[in-house]
Amino acid sequence: MNVLVLGAGQLARMMALAVKPLNINIRAFDVGSDTVVDPLSTDIVFGGLTQGIEFADFITAEFEHIDHQTLALCQASGKLRPSSQAIKVGGDRRLEKDLLIKCGVANAQHQIIATKADFDQALNNLSMPLILKSALAGYDGKGQWRLKDKAQAEDIWLDIKAFFDGGVQGLQHAVVAEQMVPFDREVSLVGARDSQGNTLVYPLTQNHHTNGVLSVSIAIEIDEALQAQAKQVFDSIAKELNYIGILAIEFFQIGEQLLVNEIAPRVHNSGHWTQQGADTCQFENHLRAVCDLPLGSTELIRPSAMINILGEDEVPNEILSVASTTLHWYGKSKRPGRKMGHINVSGNDEKQLAERLTLLADMLPEAEFDELKPYVASYKKQLS
Amino acid sequence: MNVLVLGAGQLARMMALAVKPLNINIRAFDVGSDTVVDPLSTDIVFGGLTQGIEFADFITAEFEHIDHQTLALCQASGKLRPSSQAIKVGGDRRLEKDLLIKCGVANAQHQIIATKADFDQALNNLSMPLILKSALAGYDGKGQWRLKDKAQAEDIWLDIKAFFDGGVQGLQHAVVAEQMVPFDREVSLVGARDSQGNTLVYPLTQNHHTNGVLSVSIAIEIDEALQAQAKQVFDSIAKELNYIGILAIEFFQIGEQLLVNEIAPRVHNSGHWTQQGADTCQFENHLRAVCDLPLGSTELIRPSAMINILGEDEVPNEILSVASTTLHWYGKSKRPGRKMGHINVSGNDEKQLAERLTLLADMLPEAEFDELKPYVASYKKQLS
Repeated sequence: MNVLVLGAGQLARMMALAVKPLNINIRAFDVGSDTVVDPLSTDIVFGGLTQGIEFADFITAEFEHIDHQTLALCQASGKLRPSSQAIKVGGDRRLEKDLLIKCGVANAQHQIIATKADFDQALNNLSMPLILKSALAGYDGKGQWRLKDKAQAEDIWLDIKAFFDGGVQGLQHAVVAEQMVPFDREVSLVGARDSQGNTLVYPLTQNHHTNGVLSVSIAIEIDEALQAQAKQVFDSIAKELNYIGILAIEFFQIGEQLLVNEIAPRVHNSGHWTQQGADTCQFENHLRAVCDLPLGSTELIRPSAMINILGEDEVPNEILSVASTTLHWYGKSKRPGRKMGHINVSGNDEKQLAERLTLLADMLPEAEFDELKPYVASYKKQLS
Repeated sequence: MNVLVLGAGQLARMMALAVKPLNINIRAFDVGSDTVVDPLSTDIVFGGLTQGIEFADFITAEFEHIDHQTLALCQASGKLRPSSQAIKVGGDRRLEKDLLIKCGVANAQHQIIATKADFDQALNNLSMPLILKSALAGYDGKGQWRLKDKAQAEDIWLDIKAFFDGGVQGLQHAVVAEQMVPFDREVSLVGARDSQGNTLVYPLTQNHHTNGVLSVSIAIEIDEALQAQAKQVFDSIAKELNYIGILAIEFFQIGEQLLVNEIAPRVHNSGHWTQQGADTCQFENHLRAVCDLPLGSTELIRPSAMINILGEDEVPNEILSVASTTLHWYGKSKRPGRKMGHINVSGNDEKQLAERLTLLADMLPEAEFDELKPYVASYKKQLS
């Protein structure tokens, strides 16, 4: 079976590693160079999207910011899973909000801003503080602005204008203004849907962000009610999109309620722990769904966590001496803040997981993992 | 880190998959074509052993039947782990028996046969039935003869002569005659030793052979005394060889006693279950040892089993719907009896594992997995 992945980053690489044993060959379309590469060797295999589409039995994507012409070509081939519509929803906060409303799914109060008049209206209609997010170009905290006070409004409007002027060309610009949610914690749900409409979801994951980028995820003990609430949201969104593959949903948790923050039509950073902690990892399940193989069980094997490695190309080798610790490098060149790899760790119970996380936090340099120690401490406290 | 593996089969491939996330690049030396290949793409990377040795930070092997000139070149580079001596022991039953005797390790009564006179003497000294094994060329049941009765002796002697005449050239031929052991079961121990002399072993694995080839392995609940006995044998052999990497030891179990059947200086088929069932799989631990990284925990996560796929290049997709089931194809072309892939399956306890094995045995075609059903039935019985 041959599968073309749109995008040639770490997600394509981890898909390739996960499904090589299933005799599924992954080739990755690098949109930057317009070539098709082997995501494991990174060698160019052949040039061009047309050949890539021809090669593939199925096509999928590792990111959602794909130009619409590429998506249209893939969709026309009949091989694209999930559909171009689903991928576009993940890449455009306006479509995303429309979808959430259509599905009757709880999310933050918001308004779409395309003009200065919209901006002024949002300031009047929504309560401060606001978070403004580029509808199209933002991810990992880029293209986002926080507005705490109306006095900042003019400065921020200038910033937004500058971002777009210097930024994405040829796209219709817009910003989504949301009321900031005073959440208790951020959680996400990763799940799979196959072409028959069967869905299976992993346990909810508790996430911690540092400077807008995911830094730690912990697959938490299942709270049945919360899990059921999240599963219902997953099912309604996945059904509406006639979705095939892995879909991730990020939530804000306020008390017992979940508000959708955003959705990602792909394997997700907050699901990397599934490589060691779940019966079938998200990468394998994505390809199982895409290739019409039976979905694999998404059961938690044991409590597990993931620590992102950002902007660093080495960590102390001694972390490998902590039981149940695995290291996953992406083979990328070093850049400040860049996602370079991650560490997975498991424990037979949450207490053991917390102990191992503490060991790791002590070994990893504080300068680069600056919020890890306090976060692990708060997790330990949460358990007691 | 660059590692050259002598041999380009499934073991090199699974090493490459296991350690790609550690940024360890595996290249495999295909002794047949005298080229160095990428074990994942199977593309030729460059030609020749000399270049391969130059490329490598470390060199290891996936099989023990390597010509001695190749081993000498690798040993001379100072990069070979385990040493050429250890690899040779695995490839020559005479050296293996010498080692077992030197280590004071229990094994079957045996005699080395190089001439007809030795053969006649063995018939007198040892009790029937005997198993005669080629000292150098045999594996997976090839180059083996069973002698139940002295009346068969002349015929078998002619067979042995014919095997050597038609077989391996340029090697000094010999056969090891062993008294057949009326064992209760076959078990194996896979373990790792690092360059500092630290050792960690996986739980004992219970093995079933079909026509001399491993067909099923089950990582069994630990019997402390038996595990300690096996670990002691492992430690003494590994120490004697100043071993670095994964070493496998096959035993016959008779009552509470373990007799060494044979040793394999490499990752081993009976350790494939560690990919899903152990904290760190044997492939990763082998490379951790070879590359001077800390050994990973060898703890059992949960009861696990492996089923070999022999001579077939497809199995029903429905097996993937059995929870905790993973499929590992080796990407090889189909040949009768050839090891083409394996299936791993786990359960939260042995009872659940037995249930899942039963489901799999029902789904897999009986013609190709002919001893699976009765073996699984006997395993179930063993539990109750």
